[in-house]
Amino acid sequence: MFEAAETGQKLPKGEYKRIESQLRADLLDAQYELSKDGRFPVVILISGVRGAGKGETVNLLNAWMDPRHIHTHAFDNPTDEERDRPPMWRYWRALPPKGKIGMLFGSWYTAPIIDRVFKRSRPADLVQSLDEIRRFERMLADDGVLLLKFWFHLSKKRQRERLQALQADDLTNWRVTQRDWDFFKYYDRFYKISEDALQQTSVPWAPWTVVEGSDPQYRVATVARTLLDAMRARTKQATVGPNAAPPHALPPLVPPLEGSDVLGKLDLSQTLPKKSFDTELALQQQRLALLTRHPKFREHHVIAVFEGMDAAGKGGAIRRITAALDARLYRIIPIAAPTDEERAQPYLWRFWRHVPMKGRFTIYDRSWYGRVLVERVEKFAAPPAWSRAYSEINDFEEQLARNGGIIMKYWLQISKDEQLWRFQEREKTLHKQFKITDEDWRNRKRWAQYQLAAAEMIGRTSTAEAPWTLVPANDKHHGRIQVITSLCDRIEGML
Amino acid sequence: MFEAAETGQKLPKGEYKRIESQLRADLLDAQYELSKDGRFPVVILISGVRGAGKGETVNLLNAWMDPRHIHTHAFDNPTDEERDRPPMWRYWRALPPKGKIGMLFGSWYTAPIIDRVFKRSRPADLVQSLDEIRRFERMLADDGVLLLKFWFHLSKKRQRERLQALQADDLTNWRVTQRDWDFFKYYDRFYKISEDALQQTSVPWAPWTVVEGSDPQYRVATVARTLLDAMRARTKQATVGPNAAPPHALPPLVPPLEGSDVLGKLDLSQTLPKKSFDTELALQQQRLALLTRHPKFREHHVIAVFEGMDAAGKGGAIRRITAALDARLYRIIPIAAPTDEERAQPYLWRFWRHVPMKGRFTIYDRSWYGRVLVERVEKFAAPPAWSRAYSEINDFEEQLARNGGIIMKYWLQISKDEQLWRFQEREKTLHKQFKITDEDWRNRKRWAQYQLAAAEMIGRTSTAEAPWTLVPANDKHHGRIQVITSLCDRIEGML
Repeated sequence: MFEAAETGQKLPKGEYKRIESQLRADLLDAQYELSKDGRFPVVILISGVRGAGKGETVNLLNAWMDPRHIHTHAFDNPTDEERDRPPMWRYWRALPPKGKIGMLFGSWYTAPIIDRVFKRSRPADLVQSLDEIRRFERMLADDGVLLLKFWFHLSKKRQRERLQALQADDLTNWRVTQRDWDFFKYYDRFYKISEDALQQTSVPWAPWTVVEGSDPQYRVATVARTLLDAMRARTKQATVGPNAAPPHALPPLVPPLEGSDVLGKLDLSQTLPKKSFDTELALQQQRLALLTRHPKFREHHVIAVFEGMDAAGKGGAIRRITAALDARLYRIIPIAAPTDEERAQPYLWRFWRHVPMKGRFTIYDRSWYGRVLVERVEKFAAPPAWSRAYSEINDFEEQLARNGGIIMKYWLQISKDEQLWRFQEREKTLHKQFKITDEDWRNRKRWAQYQLAAAEMIGRTSTAEAPWTLVPANDKHHGRIQVITSLCDRIEGML
Repeated sequence: MFEAAETGQKLPKGEYKRIESQLRADLLDAQYELSKDGRFPVVILISGVRGAGKGETVNLLNAWMDPRHIHTHAFDNPTDEERDRPPMWRYWRALPPKGKIGMLFGSWYTAPIIDRVFKRSRPADLVQSLDEIRRFERMLADDGVLLLKFWFHLSKKRQRERLQALQADDLTNWRVTQRDWDFFKYYDRFYKISEDALQQTSVPWAPWTVVEGSDPQYRVATVARTLLDAMRARTKQATVGPNAAPPHALPPLVPPLEGSDVLGKLDLSQTLPKKSFDTELALQQQRLALLTRHPKFREHHVIAVFEGMDAAGKGGAIRRITAALDARLYRIIPIAAPTDEERAQPYLWRFWRHVPMKGRFTIYDRSWYGRVLVERVEKFAAPPAWSRAYSEINDFEEQLARNGGIIMKYWLQISKDEQLWRFQEREKTLHKQFKITDEDWRNRKRWAQYQLAAAEMIGRTSTAEAPWTLVPANDKHHGRIQVITSLCDRIEGML
């Protein structure tokens, strides 16, 4: 792969002059189309060896295009807000919105490759990282992101010459550090491991382009041309984004329904008398309060997700938990319509932005599961979008868990009769009327479809790190005690 | 002030039980009104001595109300992302949007008071800090924020007893640290300085409420009642927010126009031949590139603001600067319509969020000055809103400057004829057509009003730390060289 980029690619000055102004005008046009439509974002990864002209090329592209619509990010050492969250959090927060171009120096490839070069990780770790990257990039692509990855390459000889030349010049010698030479010692190992990583992650929806880094004209022309072609091709596509059928093979449209009886089999007749409830609740709340003060709790954070039919008692169950918590430690995120900043990003962005720091709780009142529940049933999301969401969600939760996240997912199950009774009660009670809307009655008509969707969701997203807890909630006392008790059990098990 | 809160205020259990459920229901209603209308945010500061029940009270309020619409923030040590920006940045990012309640533990009062208690600052510093706080809170209030400030107080004797009691109980002794006792030694000094600070900052639009902290029932009932009354009164107000006439005296509606000739006096006939331009530009760009690599530059950040009539050449001047910069170090923020998340916040929030870390540039293509230019002339902002914006902006820029910010503000001045010529040129050039819209032609009709507004803006907001640079820009070469040269001069002067 890299050998092909050691052939001394050069673009003669004259040829460069001839194409430059046309290329610039075309790029500006393409960028204008992009920002006018605001249909998709462009993410460009800039990677490769030191001295191969990454910075110069990006600076030149910024000069050629309208820099107001380009966001350039460099990822050096993570800040402490970043270090405290899953490694991908810093990349999520840097994603450009639709209509903009994001240029990322350093990326999700940096750490896996460097760790392997310096043997801080084992071969299997790299395989796993690359597998995760493939899934992440697939998710971006499926969500409509135009993703281009450039690797700037230099042969060993050329890199040595280049570093020496930079060092010899008074104007540029500040750019060469001891670290660069330290890395250069490992050139061969870098070569092998990077090439391998690139081969394993060059896919049609997120292709690598290897750029020979010795000739400045060749470099920028190559990147500019690749970017232009990709933007033009994408702009011509009639539909992009989560509901578009991707150009590559789709997962099965409607997977065979499995476990549709997992909810039906729940025993909804379980009850708990008021008196036992009061005693038990006080006990569990005290237990929870103490658990959150355990010194080891600071190495974790809790993500609790509440799903269930309307009036299943999500709010009440949440309040029984937060009553035991210090208000400074938790945040409840009620999921309503996305803001326009959220709509301009891949689906999971709006959930990533609330991932808590360690020692904290984030409680989602409804969640990312909306995509495979309400969006599926009400057809806001097309089958390609919701059917791939299961694995995207599993990947997301796995990252949270690996970072010390304690993930609790509750499905509160009530019967259809119980829901009717609760709706009617709400309509009778003055200060609860706002809790019942026409939409609730409409959703109720699709009860069976919601139950099917929920059962499939539970089957496909119950994992060891992030299992679903199914809560029979016809009796509120019983439901609330089960929720808080299982939360305590889980935290206790992790400390 | 504090003496009145050492009288042993108590709410008997029976009385508390009697009012509790009504208070809860009323608070829920008020909160529901707030979140339904989304007309204004509520900011509650929770301050005062240790052991006075701040945490318990806030936890109880969260339990009484709908915690999904309350954001509670505690300000401990700043993160490194916060430390690198002006001290107020962390509070701006924690402000709740309209329709929500933000409870802030610790606030902009904490550092000024503690610094003075431990004599890390002089009396004059505290006076200055409190003056800035008054202006900041006035700005919030004028922008429609309902601001309530609670100070939890305990007499010296009661605080000692309370800390001892907490320490004696196995369930609570983790809450008392050596730091609490260290602070207690300074009780008298804290008392005096806090009381003084409160007296100086209790104003009708941001009143302090002192809460005697010994009786749990009294505490929560007092805060709840104060909050409820304030929310009800505000909800009844027909208009809130930046365009509402505030209940207190307004600044003069239309200040006497001063310096309307500052723009008229500019010599627009200045030119620079193409050849001199090329030489000079290369020179200044190299100078700028070197300046940004000066080790001392890392203690500063650059905020550059570009204003001027349509087609004055803002974009071109910006690109001549960014061409000399590493793309990783700058961000250009083109100011367009605010997003809905921005609209839900006080006016300056959308600019605060982009304040750069040290060593970086943020370039605003149009800026916060929109309020006193386009919003004033096109009447998007009413006189109360834009006439107070001058001093709000001066305060904002002063904070930036004090944090090492190098603030450059450019007004690019062209003649009316030159604008016409440029509009016509744009309409002729295919790939510039998108740069000229009907709105541009409409704005042109109000040329004289824009010039008056610009002159007043320059007069009122040219300060020592953030002066305006007036740029005759009929000749693009001349204008661009003046912009980049003055930027270099300024940075050089700061290093």
